Amino acid sequence: MSEGRKRVVIEGVFPQVDCGLYPVKRICGDELTVKADIFCDGHDEVSAVLLYRGETEQPWREEQMKHVGNDRWEGSFALRSTGVWHYTIIAWVDHFKSWQKDLLKKYEDGQDVTVELDMIRDQLKKAAETAAGNGNHQASERLHAAADELSSRHSPEQRVALGLISEGHLYSSIMDRPLATRYHHELSVVVEREKAGFSAWYELFPRSLGTDGKRHGTFRDCEELLPELAGMGFDVLYIPPLHPIGSTNRKGKNNAPTADPDDPGSPWAIGAISGGHAQLHPELGTMEDFESLVVKAAAHGLEVALDLAFQCSPDHPYVRDHPEWFFWRPDGTVQFAENPPKKYQDIIPFYFETPDWQSLWQELKRVVTFWIEKGIRIFRVDNPHTKPFPFWEWLIGEIRRDYPDVIFLAEAFTRPKVMYRLAKLGFSQSYTYFTWRTTRDELTAYLGELTRSEVREFFRPNFWPNTPDILPMHLQYGGRPAFIIRLVLAATLSSSYGIYGPVFELGVNDALPGKEEYLDAEKYEIRNWDRNAPGNLKELITTINRIRRENRAFHSTYNVTFYETDNDNLIFYSKVSRDGGNIILVVVNLDPTRVQGGRLHVPLEQLGIAPGHPYLIHDLISDEKSIWQGAWNFIELDPRRMPARIFQIRPRLRHEADFDYYM
Amino acid sequence: MSEGRKRVVIEGVFPQVDCGLYPVKRICGDELTVKADIFCDGHDEVSAVLLYRGETEQPWREEQMKHVGNDRWEGSFALRSTGVWHYTIIAWVDHFKSWQKDLLKKYEDGQDVTVELDMIRDQLKKAAETAAGNGNHQASERLHAAADELSSRHSPEQRVALGLISEGHLYSSIMDRPLATRYHHELSVVVEREKAGFSAWYELFPRSLGTDGKRHGTFRDCEELLPELAGMGFDVLYIPPLHPIGSTNRKGKNNAPTADPDDPGSPWAIGAISGGHAQLHPELGTMEDFESLVVKAAAHGLEVALDLAFQCSPDHPYVRDHPEWFFWRPDGTVQFAENPPKKYQDIIPFYFETPDWQSLWQELKRVVTFWIEKGIRIFRVDNPHTKPFPFWEWLIGEIRRDYPDVIFLAEAFTRPKVMYRLAKLGFSQSYTYFTWRTTRDELTAYLGELTRSEVREFFRPNFWPNTPDILPMHLQYGGRPAFIIRLVLAATLSSSYGIYGPVFELGVNDALPGKEEYLDAEKYEIRNWDRNAPGNLKELITTINRIRRENRAFHSTYNVTFYETDNDNLIFYSKVSRDGGNIILVVVNLDPTRVQGGRLHVPLEQLGIAPGHPYLIHDLISDEKSIWQGAWNFIELDPRRMPARIFQIRPRLRHEADFDYYM
Repeated sequence: MSEGRKRVVIEGVFPQVDCGLYPVKRICGDELTVKADIFCDGHDEVSAVLLYRGETEQPWREEQMKHVGNDRWEGSFALRSTGVWHYTIIAWVDHFKSWQKDLLKKYEDGQDVTVELDMIRDQLKKAAETAAGNGNHQASERLHAAADELSSRHSPEQRVALGLISEGHLYSSIMDRPLATRYHHELSVVVEREKAGFSAWYELFPRSLGTDGKRHGTFRDCEELLPELAGMGFDVLYIPPLHPIGSTNRKGKNNAPTADPDDPGSPWAIGAISGGHAQLHPELGTMEDFESLVVKAAAHGLEVALDLAFQCSPDHPYVRDHPEWFFWRPDGTVQFAENPPKKYQDIIPFYFETPDWQSLWQELKRVVTFWIEKGIRIFRVDNPHTKPFPFWEWLIGEIRRDYPDVIFLAEAFTRPKVMYRLAKLGFSQSYTYFTWRTTRDELTAYLGELTRSEVREFFRPNFWPNTPDILPMHLQYGGRPAFIIRLVLAATLSSSYGIYGPVFELGVNDALPGKEEYLDAEKYEIRNWDRNAPGNLKELITTINRIRRENRAFHSTYNVTFYETDNDNLIFYSKVSRDGGNIILVVVNLDPTRVQGGRLHVPLEQLGIAPGHPYLIHDLISDEKSIWQGAWNFIELDPRRMPARIFQIRPRLRHEADFDYYM
Repeated sequence: MSEGRKRVVIEGVFPQVDCGLYPVKRICGDELTVKADIFCDGHDEVSAVLLYRGETEQPWREEQMKHVGNDRWEGSFALRSTGVWHYTIIAWVDHFKSWQKDLLKKYEDGQDVTVELDMIRDQLKKAAETAAGNGNHQASERLHAAADELSSRHSPEQRVALGLISEGHLYSSIMDRPLATRYHHELSVVVEREKAGFSAWYELFPRSLGTDGKRHGTFRDCEELLPELAGMGFDVLYIPPLHPIGSTNRKGKNNAPTADPDDPGSPWAIGAISGGHAQLHPELGTMEDFESLVVKAAAHGLEVALDLAFQCSPDHPYVRDHPEWFFWRPDGTVQFAENPPKKYQDIIPFYFETPDWQSLWQELKRVVTFWIEKGIRIFRVDNPHTKPFPFWEWLIGEIRRDYPDVIFLAEAFTRPKVMYRLAKLGFSQSYTYFTWRTTRDELTAYLGELTRSEVREFFRPNFWPNTPDILPMHLQYGGRPAFIIRLVLAATLSSSYGIYGPVFELGVNDALPGKEEYLDAEKYEIRNWDRNAPGNLKELITTINRIRRENRAFHSTYNVTFYETDNDNLIFYSKVSRDGGNIILVVVNLDPTRVQGGRLHVPLEQLGIAPGHPYLIHDLISDEKSIWQGAWNFIELDPRRMPARIFQIRPRLRHEADFDYYM
């Protein structure tokens, strides 16, 4: 028979992921609010505290929890530093509080409370004796003194007043807490730096930066572009693999199975005689050039993100030096990589089931730390879903222990549960299905899944309208308006988003026939772009990124709420900052080809707008201001001009004079 | 670094309650279907088995699981005996299956598969060596033989055919299963006998059975009533506490604080000079009389359910013999029981926080086993929410270990989370809020919570329209139709239900003014009822209980589905047996005072009715048959005649000739 007097139940503790198996995720500076169902049998009062501590702290800190109704309790604590924090709950029957409540009720009802007061006195004495028995003489004296004060020389009113204040906390600590219930799990939260939650990515192929269209671009070319990219408002510059490229089975233009002599090959076919994952492709420049790029980028507020593609070209030094890391077939070949229906004949995968898996893991960790030592703190991980889950859990855990500021983005376009599992076990951000979600219903349902379900506790989306692998159908046929629509949606729905440029801002939409792949893709050849070609979206992108930075409502993904419209082509949603001070309404015409008009439903009450009063809406894209009134307002969006509005609304208008609206 | 090659993930395992902390519940003969998300990295094939065993069985049994889509897998096993069963899952990368799939795909595509076949041959040999190394020479020989068969003297077609059948299971058992993932929890299911899930309860006060209205009724009077109660179709006869009743602070009529000399007192004020929880109230009869009642009831298909009210009158022998089991106040009194706003001055609670709690627990267990030895297997537990949760968990666990057929009904009318917790920790059935849910929205929402959420895994409702403590408002003012409405709802919505009679079937609706309590309640006085008074509902109850027995659709609570009606006063729902063979539609007019008509939406497709065909509906209450057609059908229900219909529908009409409908 274990202790049968622990009467309090703690259950339904939130947030937690998979019964506490994985940590929830937060950003440094966040408050973590913990909720739980806490109750005991009968009618006694309960007290509960949230216990929490940083990874390296030993004693738990305590924060009072409060009952918020229907046996639900809440408590919060501030996540003041990156790394892992732990939390759990203890709760106990608070006898003193129960007696006080009973005392007050009876006293206010005019009943004689002599017995109740005497009982409290006796219980204080009992606690004093227990404290003395525990060697806690100071507590014992305080409790004896409180009991003595409750003696009868006071008036009934005085005694009741004393009964209500008499050392309840001290009593609880001695008499109640030994029988406290402790929640059976210790939960944890991984706290990352701000960029893990709010970031604007720009992907480019440095080799296409050669100015004459023939010359192989270099890290130095990249450096020259930094002011422009920073000016457009991006804060992550993501570069595809920059290692030596294999020549065996090298792919030609448009993924042709054989390459011409001057074809550069896919950067993802990593490894040649000149080196592997810790070396640079010679034509890009030297290690010094690379380090210079990283430093200069930082000076412009840009972080360089590297691609972690754990795979090899057949020419990779690993193949020669570590044949045990590959699966050899009876004909002496290694099966090349497949991601059905795609085939990568120029790439061979590691054999993670090798008996020598531990040395493989250690080597891959060494690759990551190598680049960390070169100043890299962000990695975009290529196809993590084709490597074992336990590997990522170990690798990310190992890296985070020493470098809690390292951010990992999972490039897994695969089945939902696989993507979510990768996020649970540590990836900071993840690619998503946004790339293919285009209708109002699709977007609303998908954002609902990401922001209203348990998923929000561990999965941070990063929305990409395009990637070097994906030119989706709607961009192929929607013209320039389609690019604007997808830009605004990505940048305003998700606090992290990215574009693959300059093809995105140039509106490049030539695809391989019947496929969602770029024609003459940079993956297989060096291209030359006129970054300032007419019709480019650089100015709009600059505006959107500025709006995102300036409006805290866009610094979280989880604060989106969709509202009604009477036209399915119009999507309408709000983003509101945590303190309610920054209120944004976004409306987008999802049809890139036609003017769409319709009424939007503004939930006045919810947004703090006094019904019957006019309110100012300020379109942050066009900088136009107008006055709306009432809940339903008509709007018309011409995609050829601008298919979207991002309105800022002034909050708490009801407390201001009417004239202020027109400022 | 723990084993990094266990590549399969098992998560989202269902059913489970509170992360596996509590067992799910099922009825003997049920199949338990277990679902889980199971997947691995990459594109390899996965195999999974459900492991299960009875409490006392040692080796696990295995059942194959099947992929049902979106990485969700399912497997089932039969619960062939009462008691606790355990289950968990293991899953592994099935390399042989992966190679076979790859082989077949390439072969059907016309590719040369020599290398693939050679690889399978080599892998078979490798497995043969591993088996030999493990000392499993028989397996080794079989694998060698399979590898030899795959040698090149066969035609390509023969080799492919051999590759597809070559000892995949054996290969997996030797090479894959050592790297299988085992789900991190062992889950359990408590299996109870049928009555835990399907039962019709009748509660009565034996002392009111004295034929002349003065004489104290006895167990023998009870015996005489057995044929009538059995004839009405009840299978549980629940009797309030039948122990000696205290005289100190005895309650008078209508809960008066003082009693007249001839007032019998509340049966829940247990304990007097003549004994306590293991003795019988002398005026009811002897222990032999009681045992005779239990045996005779069983002969009529009725089980006697006893009331476990763990509390004492001030005269209980425990108070004298075990003062340490009570909380004494400074004035030498024990605080009486309260269940705000109700006060029970004649009842004192046990002090479960006594240092001597273990002896108290043991004594209460002794009380339960005492009655079990008298033949009792069903207990209705009075106010379990005022005793500690760990006590119930322990007590029910202890009793169930020796007597898995004992059923506990929790009489906890309290906050939802408290009620659910009691169910989780072992109660077979629970009282519910049904007693106060009267509108269509209320009933639909409540049944949704009970049958469509996790609650269904552990909480078995028992619907009571009335109890000795509760005469709800709608029964006070709705006349006879209200009693019929509540009877039909209770009996058809929940597979377990009960009435407190004969006041229910007599439609007694006199209440204390402004309260939901009976006037001149039997709790405090002996009443005399004319069980055959005109207008009684005995015949209807008999019909309803017969319909319940004969139609398997009513043997579960969790198969209810609500359908649309265009009149809020009409509630319309189906109950369908697990095999689909018994389809029932119930419609009830919730307004006891007015005729209500409206259209009901019959989901034809869902019920297997061919659209455009007529279908026979058979009202099992009136035995009238009629023909409906199409989805929307009009109905009008006059509460003064009969406010409800229970239609049986013939399933799979589309496969029969039209004339059959009219049989």
